[in-house]
Amino acid sequence: MADLFSRYSGEPLYIQLYMYYRDMIIGGSLKAGDKLPSVRKCAAEFAVSKMTVENAYMQLTAEGYVNARSQSGYYVPEISDMTVPYAPADRGEAEENRFVPKYDLSGSSADKECFDFNLWQKYVKYALRCSDRLLSYGDAQGEYDLRAAISEYAAQERGVVCSPSRIVIGAGVQTLIQLLCSLDPERSDVIFTGAQFEQGSAVFRDYGYRVLRGMDEYSSGSHVSFVYASPSRSNEFCDVMNISDRASLLNFARKKDCIIIEDDYDSEFCYFSRPVSSLQGLDGGINVAYIGTFSRLLLPSIRISFMVLPEKLEQRYADRAGFYNQTASKTEQIALARYITDGKLVTQIRKARKHYETKAEIMKSRIKRELGPEFVRISDSGFMVFFDLKTDVDAVGAIEKLRRCGLVVKDIRQAEQNKLRVFVSSASIQQDDIEISVILLKKALFI
Amino acid sequence: MADLFSRYSGEPLYIQLYMYYRDMIIGGSLKAGDKLPSVRKCAAEFAVSKMTVENAYMQLTAEGYVNARSQSGYYVPEISDMTVPYAPADRGEAEENRFVPKYDLSGSSADKECFDFNLWQKYVKYALRCSDRLLSYGDAQGEYDLRAAISEYAAQERGVVCSPSRIVIGAGVQTLIQLLCSLDPERSDVIFTGAQFEQGSAVFRDYGYRVLRGMDEYSSGSHVSFVYASPSRSNEFCDVMNISDRASLLNFARKKDCIIIEDDYDSEFCYFSRPVSSLQGLDGGINVAYIGTFSRLLLPSIRISFMVLPEKLEQRYADRAGFYNQTASKTEQIALARYITDGKLVTQIRKARKHYETKAEIMKSRIKRELGPEFVRISDSGFMVFFDLKTDVDAVGAIEKLRRCGLVVKDIRQAEQNKLRVFVSSASIQQDDIEISVILLKKALFI
Repeated sequence: MADLFSRYSGEPLYIQLYMYYRDMIIGGSLKAGDKLPSVRKCAAEFAVSKMTVENAYMQLTAEGYVNARSQSGYYVPEISDMTVPYAPADRGEAEENRFVPKYDLSGSSADKECFDFNLWQKYVKYALRCSDRLLSYGDAQGEYDLRAAISEYAAQERGVVCSPSRIVIGAGVQTLIQLLCSLDPERSDVIFTGAQFEQGSAVFRDYGYRVLRGMDEYSSGSHVSFVYASPSRSNEFCDVMNISDRASLLNFARKKDCIIIEDDYDSEFCYFSRPVSSLQGLDGGINVAYIGTFSRLLLPSIRISFMVLPEKLEQRYADRAGFYNQTASKTEQIALARYITDGKLVTQIRKARKHYETKAEIMKSRIKRELGPEFVRISDSGFMVFFDLKTDVDAVGAIEKLRRCGLVVKDIRQAEQNKLRVFVSSASIQQDDIEISVILLKKALFI
Repeated sequence: MADLFSRYSGEPLYIQLYMYYRDMIIGGSLKAGDKLPSVRKCAAEFAVSKMTVENAYMQLTAEGYVNARSQSGYYVPEISDMTVPYAPADRGEAEENRFVPKYDLSGSSADKECFDFNLWQKYVKYALRCSDRLLSYGDAQGEYDLRAAISEYAAQERGVVCSPSRIVIGAGVQTLIQLLCSLDPERSDVIFTGAQFEQGSAVFRDYGYRVLRGMDEYSSGSHVSFVYASPSRSNEFCDVMNISDRASLLNFARKKDCIIIEDDYDSEFCYFSRPVSSLQGLDGGINVAYIGTFSRLLLPSIRISFMVLPEKLEQRYADRAGFYNQTASKTEQIALARYITDGKLVTQIRKARKHYETKAEIMKSRIKRELGPEFVRISDSGFMVFFDLKTDVDAVGAIEKLRRCGLVVKDIRQAEQNKLRVFVSSASIQQDDIEISVILLKKALFI
């Protein structure tokens, strides 16, 4: 035993043993799911008493490095379940890249309070019982019952003109863009309007398209394949696109015989005050490919998106559909179909809207009280609060200061000299944490 | 009531009501998840007694058109759970396209007997409890714990040279091919060796590659980006590629500075008798992109595949990784990681191998006894039995005759005049059904 544990010498035996295993787990020599040797075996191996081993294992258990399973033994848990930072050793990530904010005001993850996990779990369990369906590959276009449910939902909630046969399911927006590319033999220009969507333009570039950032970059001679737009988030303030801009976009598409891709990102939350139909609905479904996603509505980890094909691509898709496999999880498709037809999605949207609205209002009022900004506003989307703040700190310095206080925000920009525009989202943060996060914001930006 | 049900007149009232709802369900006016009106409401609406409604609903329940849920009412079940054929009305599919074989000898779906659903369900439930992980988007490359588990598995079982950082997860093989295309700026030739894989070549064509069918089509001048090979299923008989062919493939790749894509499809079942290391392992991981999938091992509906990047693409991937979202279900990734680290995957493979081996042996012996073919052989993969049969029927006629008997086989080819080569798979069929399916095969081909 002396050899093995010399570097921990001076400590009680059980602490030496505890440190030995702890370091193996942190260092990755023992991985998630690995089992520690039995108490008897470990005692024999290191020539210590069983009591010593038991004490060491208890210490490891108490600190979360291993889990005890009855009748089975001690196991290393999932890395994310442990208290040590989630840091795969072989990626060589620098320390700063692993920053995990204490308070996330960037809106990048979902709010636990708002989603009924137990209910979703029931639907997944229901899907798992559909064993006959899970034994086969399923419909390449997406499960029929899900397409039927989405068709009804999109028509009712967003005025989308559709039928199950025109809906294609995919694991995320990129998958659907890839499909659109494969249906277009021309591969000429794509115009991205509004906020840039790097992961979207990357796909188009891969397929040989020229990507233009905004209508300004377009010169009238060239051929346009697609215009990419998010009318529900048309600018940096996440405001919705007004009706005259919508009409001119549709006119452009008709004149140029190109397809508008309407990425209706977060639309369910963008119309608190003034519901506007989808572009696709305004257009009658001719020139618009409508894309919707369920990641924000349910869980970011549910990778189910859908596209309503424009009328003019329907036949081309039917001809080529056999070449493309479905990417979305069939289990989750079945679960979601039932979840929608049981009316749970609509209930969840209503609940989430109310919840996010409340949080944004609290955020706004706390910012007003604590920071006394020149102005403060909630975006149309209901997620985002932004405000202007007089301060000597510049944008880069502010981000660093926030970071040191354990905060991350959506964006900070230099509005003018000695004035910052700060964008915070209340989407990810829990209601009870809003107050403390705003106080930390104040502390970071003023001190 | 007379108006509504006139077309069913002459029948008892409860039968009329039953037919009315039955036709609405078959016709699609009532969809999966829809609720029938309450007994009280229905009785009031059609001015009949509650007893009449109850009798009608009982009839519908008995025949599987609706399910009764206690304290809640009567609901239309999932279409696939009903006895009527799964036939979405709006797809306009011709009757023959909807043929569902009584006995599937094509091997296109998995075998229910072989997969422990309850166990898998437990792992998915475990994953559903990891609520903190499910609230975020997760790692674009694939969950770290899954990559670590796969890394160990692929190294042990297939001699693959890898580490978690070189593994990319994706929802299906096509997704991984798309990623490879995006990492290759050249887009020149792709050579598909062995059996054609249409869904693979479709992706390459979409990205602008020229697809060559076999080494014969290659003329030595042109630049080759990729060679696509399945050494575990190198020919029509699903035989494994021999070692000298493997070596010459690797030499070709080194000489031409191209990448071999090793699609190790079904490899877990291809090495009953003679385990051969993966091409990637032979190569030391330099020029080979290794692709594996879990659809056959577990469920076809689990869309999780993985790729081990060749050394020379590792840096290029790291530079571009941020542009590509993960497509595989995070829940299923978490479940699968634990399933593998708990040793369940290896157990499942052993069990499935034995099971498929037994079925193939039974299939072969029954074919021998019933059909007395000139020769009969089990392929290396253990799934496929093929045999030659003297008959006047030609291949097309034989397929049609089998179809009429409710059978579908993997393939039938004209070996020579008056001789057919028939390929059947025992993968999808249950053990108890092998005998009857071979008897039907005999009936179809001889009568």
